[in-house]
Amino acid sequence: MLYSLDSLNCGDMDKATLHPSGRDPQEWQALLEQFLSHGSEEGLLELETNITSDPVTYCCHGLNKPVKELAELEANFSSVIIPELPVNSSAYARHLSEDILNQVVPVSSPTFVGHMTSALPQHLPAMGKILTALNQNVVKLETSHILTALERQVLGMMHKLVYNCDETFYNQWLHNGDYALATFCSGGTLANLTAMWACRNQLLPADGDFAGLAREGLARGLIHYGYSGLAILVSELGHYSLKKTVDVLGLGQDSLIKIETDRNGRICTSALLAKLQELRQRNIRPMAIVGIAGTTETGSIDPLNALADIAEQEQCHFHIDAAWGGASLLSERHRHLFAGIERADSVTIDAHKQMYVPMGTGMVLFRQPSLASAISQHANYIVRKGSKDLGRHTLEGSRCAMSLMLHSNFHLLGRRGFAQLIDASIEKAQQFAVLIRQQEDFELISEPELCLLTYRYVPPKVLQALHVASEPDRQKLYDELNALNQHIQTMQWSAGQSFVSRTTLQPTQWDRQPTTVLRVVLANPLTTMEILEEMLKEQRQLAQKSPHWHTLQALAH
Amino acid sequence: MLYSLDSLNCGDMDKATLHPSGRDPQEWQALLEQFLSHGSEEGLLELETNITSDPVTYCCHGLNKPVKELAELEANFSSVIIPELPVNSSAYARHLSEDILNQVVPVSSPTFVGHMTSALPQHLPAMGKILTALNQNVVKLETSHILTALERQVLGMMHKLVYNCDETFYNQWLHNGDYALATFCSGGTLANLTAMWACRNQLLPADGDFAGLAREGLARGLIHYGYSGLAILVSELGHYSLKKTVDVLGLGQDSLIKIETDRNGRICTSALLAKLQELRQRNIRPMAIVGIAGTTETGSIDPLNALADIAEQEQCHFHIDAAWGGASLLSERHRHLFAGIERADSVTIDAHKQMYVPMGTGMVLFRQPSLASAISQHANYIVRKGSKDLGRHTLEGSRCAMSLMLHSNFHLLGRRGFAQLIDASIEKAQQFAVLIRQQEDFELISEPELCLLTYRYVPPKVLQALHVASEPDRQKLYDELNALNQHIQTMQWSAGQSFVSRTTLQPTQWDRQPTTVLRVVLANPLTTMEILEEMLKEQRQLAQKSPHWHTLQALAH
Repeated sequence: MLYSLDSLNCGDMDKATLHPSGRDPQEWQALLEQFLSHGSEEGLLELETNITSDPVTYCCHGLNKPVKELAELEANFSSVIIPELPVNSSAYARHLSEDILNQVVPVSSPTFVGHMTSALPQHLPAMGKILTALNQNVVKLETSHILTALERQVLGMMHKLVYNCDETFYNQWLHNGDYALATFCSGGTLANLTAMWACRNQLLPADGDFAGLAREGLARGLIHYGYSGLAILVSELGHYSLKKTVDVLGLGQDSLIKIETDRNGRICTSALLAKLQELRQRNIRPMAIVGIAGTTETGSIDPLNALADIAEQEQCHFHIDAAWGGASLLSERHRHLFAGIERADSVTIDAHKQMYVPMGTGMVLFRQPSLASAISQHANYIVRKGSKDLGRHTLEGSRCAMSLMLHSNFHLLGRRGFAQLIDASIEKAQQFAVLIRQQEDFELISEPELCLLTYRYVPPKVLQALHVASEPDRQKLYDELNALNQHIQTMQWSAGQSFVSRTTLQPTQWDRQPTTVLRVVLANPLTTMEILEEMLKEQRQLAQKSPHWHTLQALAH
Repeated sequence: MLYSLDSLNCGDMDKATLHPSGRDPQEWQALLEQFLSHGSEEGLLELETNITSDPVTYCCHGLNKPVKELAELEANFSSVIIPELPVNSSAYARHLSEDILNQVVPVSSPTFVGHMTSALPQHLPAMGKILTALNQNVVKLETSHILTALERQVLGMMHKLVYNCDETFYNQWLHNGDYALATFCSGGTLANLTAMWACRNQLLPADGDFAGLAREGLARGLIHYGYSGLAILVSELGHYSLKKTVDVLGLGQDSLIKIETDRNGRICTSALLAKLQELRQRNIRPMAIVGIAGTTETGSIDPLNALADIAEQEQCHFHIDAAWGGASLLSERHRHLFAGIERADSVTIDAHKQMYVPMGTGMVLFRQPSLASAISQHANYIVRKGSKDLGRHTLEGSRCAMSLMLHSNFHLLGRRGFAQLIDASIEKAQQFAVLIRQQEDFELISEPELCLLTYRYVPPKVLQALHVASEPDRQKLYDELNALNQHIQTMQWSAGQSFVSRTTLQPTQWDRQPTTVLRVVLANPLTTMEILEEMLKEQRQLAQKSPHWHTLQALAH
């Protein structure tokens, strides 16, 4: 058995420094040593050194062998009893190394191109260790002090990157504790939620005998202002966190209105205008228009200036979800794709995506620093009125100082270093698109606007057949093709050597039929064209071994 | 100047590996080296070693010198320009060490007893480094695999600790991807929010032509079910995250009903019953009764069984906020204080409080694994229906694998190691309470039920005067006494040698007058009684130097 609490516990029971009976001074001393001494973690330090001296290689050492079935792993992680006695740290380090870490997903591997994460700059593990050791809590000054000033600076840098306001603006607002230019949060989901929370509260403020939505709630707010409902409008490629957002905020998922996209995955503004008209007739107030700058599924960027115009005209909040794409603002060459972003009332950016920091570094930026007032909080012992505690403006309470991770990347890569990484990623995606087009048995489904594209495997005979077959044969073919691509993706993951993700799109070139596609994100600077060529070869081989391939051949005959 | 981008940037411009012009292969190679090479982070590794070999000492090296004024720090963190060129990592490490980390708050120091954090076990920085290097994303199997199984196991251990269900139960649910025994989140605020989100959605489910609150929203739900509103009831010592919760969920802050507490900081059940009666008359449906197991301000534990009875009778969700206190369940000696917790529908516990892991490890536990269905999500490319992706049941999306931190503590401390730490903390708090009572110029305000207590400085003459003075003199005295204690706390923080926090309570023994108190949490195993004695001495000295002291002497005369 891979994981056995029994073996861990009983084997080490003799070495245990604690006894079942009450605490005596000697025991206590032993526990404190266990708790604090440097020597006791030798095994772990060795493991740490192995992993972090070359995370790409370490995390890839599970490569070239098939991924273990989850069911098998689950069986090994099925005891719910907390180990009664401590085990020594070398034994634990061995357990970690042999039974756990050799089965983690090599997300840093240059052959794992299905994620929005990448290999990270080499200095970050050290930063992770430092942050853990310092364990600051940025919710309040008393547990973060200097890092409060540093966080506000880093957020100011992000604000400048997006909104590029002048010096007077930042002099006035950067360190003004009653306002916030932006807030950190654990990720894009909370960033979108925070933006929409502020927007909702601001839309139905105190007025006459109504104390405001934050106080009296949504139902009374709607009655007071005479609306039948509120709505958030976004393209059909909007991130699923928005559905969560409208649910959490009490608006209900039906109030998230999805607008169709064009061939390039961009929101159709005419469809948006028509929907706004319809909402007006139903007495539903559009609360926010959400533009996407880099959709999760296709990497497309909505026409931001056009959306800003519409939002202005509707007097409606304009939010941009640039969780993944926003980092590309750091590139002079590609910044123009985001024209109009500076007109957004709020913007979501995840630094743990294309800004190369670890998980947990989401941000929401506010054009007007006063927007944060709609969600500000206080209590007797923390985030008191007038204080500079960062927790006054965040959804979360206690938080670690992830701003330091971004601070280190800003300094160790520099704006130009980022730009080079981003430019290279986009260039690579364009080259990969060319490569896919050159293959007779692969079809590019969405073009890379940033460094993300989708494609699928289609044997040429099947492609021909799809164009000539009549219903219901055509449908059968299409379904089987979807099944084949799903199978390729799963088999490739299980083989463990490389990874692309998959999703279902409704491409206009295929009459918006649900289409299973392979999805590739090329942000890892270690991914080469040779790797991508090999990956296509592997997919072709997997396809030809799949039972769906034979069914397709027969159907296309 | 403490922080100068200019000096960092220009000084290193010659050494910069990147040029303003476009990318050529050599430059690219240099950037990749900067990005990945081990050698480039030497300065950081040295810094990391210094900090983590003895975090308590390192973080305390800022001690014995006054804390810098925030305004001074802010001036040094005021540039919003992202550095254009990279600096080398030794220069950055120097900057970090000399200009930033020597001003962080020594939260691990045994003399900093005002926080809910403590010194951490020595192995955790290594775990922090490993987690950063692995950068797994537990939102989905494809980026976490084995850690998905491990997370479910750790959550199962927590569930067992709280609910102690039998083997059959865990066999059935532990690894059932359609359900969740619990979920991780960044902290107690999100845990409370998640619990109340699930509770709200479950209370107004689909029914007839109503598609359920999650779909149609709160306003329609209230109309369909014929309620004028919903309410959450909690004692006046409820955490401020609950106010945020009712705001975010659209219920409005007025729907958080605060119930008075008794002398021991426990909710008055008679007042709760009266309030429930009143809500019924107003046609407001009690959505949840929240019990607190370890209030943030006084550490009190509500009568959980009595609350469970009332919730049962009202057919209302029973949530327990045990964010800070819940860890005490690991102690046989003190577990009995939590009797009734196993009857709660949901429980919040923060492992980053008394379970000695770093920031970012909140949890919400569900008695019935089906509760999570009320908030489950899915999308095309992630958390698909039927998948085992953990993101199906969490408020957050992308998340790092903090479960591994708790896993390591469970193994390296063992259940008994935790119990010893917790027992020792509570014992120390009891001894400190005795010590405070022995001082003629300190007054214990709240008894330690767990390891938290509050007290204040009161010169004996002032105490006497308070008992005999008539209004408005008494009020003046009281206000001045509050100001004195606030001053003591601020001065002690600025002096930089030790730290207690402060809050405002309304103690019954002082006719519920707003009373500024000093608050101490004794979870750090390195804090000794000698340290606490010294701390009282320092407070006495600070008091006698305060202008408020002289005013009080005059008033009490």
